[in-house]
Amino acid sequence: MKNKIIEGFSKLDKDKKINWLIQEYAHRSEDIKNILTQYWNKNQELQKLHEEFSENTISNFYMPFGIAPNFLINNELYAIPMVIEESSVVAAASKSAKFWLDKGGFKTSILGFSKSGHVHFIFKGNHEKLKSWFDRFLKHQLFENTQDITKNMRRRGGGILNLKLIDKTAELENYFQIQADFDTKDSMGANFINSCLEQFSRTLKEEIQKSDLFPLEEKDSVQVIMSILSNYTPECIARAEVSCPIEDLKDDGGIFPEEFAWKFKQAVKIAEIEPYRAATHNKGIMNGVDSVIIATGNDFRAVEACAHTYASRNGKYSSLTHCTTDDGIFRFWIDLPLAVGVVGGLTKLHPLVTAALEILSNPSAEKLMQIAAVAGLAQNFAALRSLVTTGIQKGHMKMHLLNILNQLGATEDEKQHFVNFFKDKTVSHHLVIDEFERLRSGKN
Amino acid sequence: MKNKIIEGFSKLDKDKKINWLIQEYAHRSEDIKNILTQYWNKNQELQKLHEEFSENTISNFYMPFGIAPNFLINNELYAIPMVIEESSVVAAASKSAKFWLDKGGFKTSILGFSKSGHVHFIFKGNHEKLKSWFDRFLKHQLFENTQDITKNMRRRGGGILNLKLIDKTAELENYFQIQADFDTKDSMGANFINSCLEQFSRTLKEEIQKSDLFPLEEKDSVQVIMSILSNYTPECIARAEVSCPIEDLKDDGGIFPEEFAWKFKQAVKIAEIEPYRAATHNKGIMNGVDSVIIATGNDFRAVEACAHTYASRNGKYSSLTHCTTDDGIFRFWIDLPLAVGVVGGLTKLHPLVTAALEILSNPSAEKLMQIAAVAGLAQNFAALRSLVTTGIQKGHMKMHLLNILNQLGATEDEKQHFVNFFKDKTVSHHLVIDEFERLRSGKN
Repeated sequence: MKNKIIEGFSKLDKDKKINWLIQEYAHRSEDIKNILTQYWNKNQELQKLHEEFSENTISNFYMPFGIAPNFLINNELYAIPMVIEESSVVAAASKSAKFWLDKGGFKTSILGFSKSGHVHFIFKGNHEKLKSWFDRFLKHQLFENTQDITKNMRRRGGGILNLKLIDKTAELENYFQIQADFDTKDSMGANFINSCLEQFSRTLKEEIQKSDLFPLEEKDSVQVIMSILSNYTPECIARAEVSCPIEDLKDDGGIFPEEFAWKFKQAVKIAEIEPYRAATHNKGIMNGVDSVIIATGNDFRAVEACAHTYASRNGKYSSLTHCTTDDGIFRFWIDLPLAVGVVGGLTKLHPLVTAALEILSNPSAEKLMQIAAVAGLAQNFAALRSLVTTGIQKGHMKMHLLNILNQLGATEDEKQHFVNFFKDKTVSHHLVIDEFERLRSGKN
Repeated sequence: MKNKIIEGFSKLDKDKKINWLIQEYAHRSEDIKNILTQYWNKNQELQKLHEEFSENTISNFYMPFGIAPNFLINNELYAIPMVIEESSVVAAASKSAKFWLDKGGFKTSILGFSKSGHVHFIFKGNHEKLKSWFDRFLKHQLFENTQDITKNMRRRGGGILNLKLIDKTAELENYFQIQADFDTKDSMGANFINSCLEQFSRTLKEEIQKSDLFPLEEKDSVQVIMSILSNYTPECIARAEVSCPIEDLKDDGGIFPEEFAWKFKQAVKIAEIEPYRAATHNKGIMNGVDSVIIATGNDFRAVEACAHTYASRNGKYSSLTHCTTDDGIFRFWIDLPLAVGVVGGLTKLHPLVTAALEILSNPSAEKLMQIAAVAGLAQNFAALRSLVTTGIQKGHMKMHLLNILNQLGATEDEKQHFVNFFKDKTVSHHLVIDEFERLRSGKN
């Protein structure tokens, strides 16, 4: 057990890392080594680049990079790159794109483009005095002392939009925030925002010490707990929507347009009032959103945290999409807050990300937000369409069938047999197993 | 524009897909083609396997597969495989592991292991009669009619735990649920649960038609809107915690243990009361959790949706971790609901996933839940530790430095220069640029 503890692991080269790892933690040593190394790229420079994205990297984890074509967005056509390990997501997106292609496609817009961060601090003293000092003096100084950091961003038309002091003492004793709003243009902006905030925190501490307004005990009471951007960006938000006359909602499942519209709307309403359903409903949306986020080198944890926090903003976790069927018109939309970048981070570094962005005609951050919102809405449309008609399993398991057959070690001929076998049946795991055993045992 | 619309894209072979894509959507055609193909695995069988995970796959998206060693969990040592594209996450996890290694490590437990799904349906009629029919007759029939589907799961000790009718008509007119609780053992269980639920829905519709209790209009009023598992699993939950005497909280940043504990606890409290902070706080947790989820072939969108829905369960979006400093003891813990599998899905199919699971000693689903919770807690500890001492940028930008230098096309010698240059400074994007320009211009 003692050798399972290691000092200086990060400083070992890749081979030594792997050797230590398999010696201490893997029983099938040779197999594991082969698996790890079979994913290395033969181009050593490229391999090294990918290793340097993170720390202690010993291999490359493959996620399928796929394409969902035929997306009409604001009258322009897109083929959307999606990175996702789950079967049926890319197929579902493509199906939705096709469905809406001859109905005017997707319409999108930006409802806001501002992100926030906070200096969270403790101050024991007179609230009014602090407020007045902040407004009359400190605010200006905070702008001043970040001129160097914001220079490039200002040149690109962005920067700090606004600064305010927020009194949070009703919720936590002596707790205040400096809230700063930012426009980070085409960058996601996390490093920029955090660098500004850390400078704000230094300025706050320095300036209050210099000020004549506060007695010593008030000055020394200032404790910055932390300075950090918020991933929750309810003011940085894209809308995507589809609409058509209800009579145009023709589904191949033999359901009448009126009934389809009614059931679809009920399904959305249920997700609006029931958190158990809302979680899964929104999970499906994020299947689409995250696929685009990853393909374009963005941070899906940030986008997830934002979307779900937004989904709970009214006190109860709820649906991100909404639906109306008024005056004979079916309308379905999403308001999706998210912070993404098309410069900085991995966007220019990961070659496949540069390819994804090129395929999307090198969109601005605002445009990418809208494309991601469309992918989420399309995914949700496909999921609800299946759910209220044939059920989700029929389509999903048809797509998952190849995975099950690969796991069983099926040959190409056997795979073909199963595609025919399930032509008019819903795939289920136990049916595949039963038929596979029948097939291999040679029974007819 | 006309050729940007395509029929039968999914049926084209990979080369034809790429050719169409770059012709219609890429300007740097040859470059894009090279980028897409340079990521193909030379082992064609392996390449094909990965393509079949999803649809319309044209390349493999690399995510760094790294290792965070030195995790002591319930007195056993682990080296945790993490898949993440963001720099500094694996380093932070490793640092936390090391910090807690000589303080008793992480303690974990399972607080619940039951997942749910629902048949969401409309019924216009007598509520009491429906309830009584469900309890006395239908419930038994639902178990009966899923015997085939549940057979294998029951053999493994799992299956349907409970069935109940929920009257939701106060929230939406005529809306009822059949809620089913499941134990899916070592599988995530999505396909199993959905197959059961779709059978429940058929049984409900058939049996109410056969029943003598309901008049025709009540029978015909039954409309199943959808049958679907919930990704929200508040009863499937792992706890991970660390604790030690406050005096042992020695940080190399020169902060006293008492002050560290106080600031750390304040930082957690702020995340408990302020959604803007909670989103980012939990985002950091999910950096750790998702890294393990992806490495082990699980579905991170499901895990994200669950965790964030849980974070909002009390009416306000809040922190997933908590901290106390009572009686001289620092205690920090997370209760993390999540549904994961170690069989089914990609777990046995993706070779790197089988390697990750082997490195973790092939854990049960319950054990994997606990490891993921530990990774989340460790990540949050590292983030808060940085935030309340040196600030987040120092460590994060140090890790991100190589990415910036790679983007600038720095040589190995230049990289070494920068590592020395930033030994005692916080890395920022504009400082790197300035120094890089100085270096290249040959000034001293």
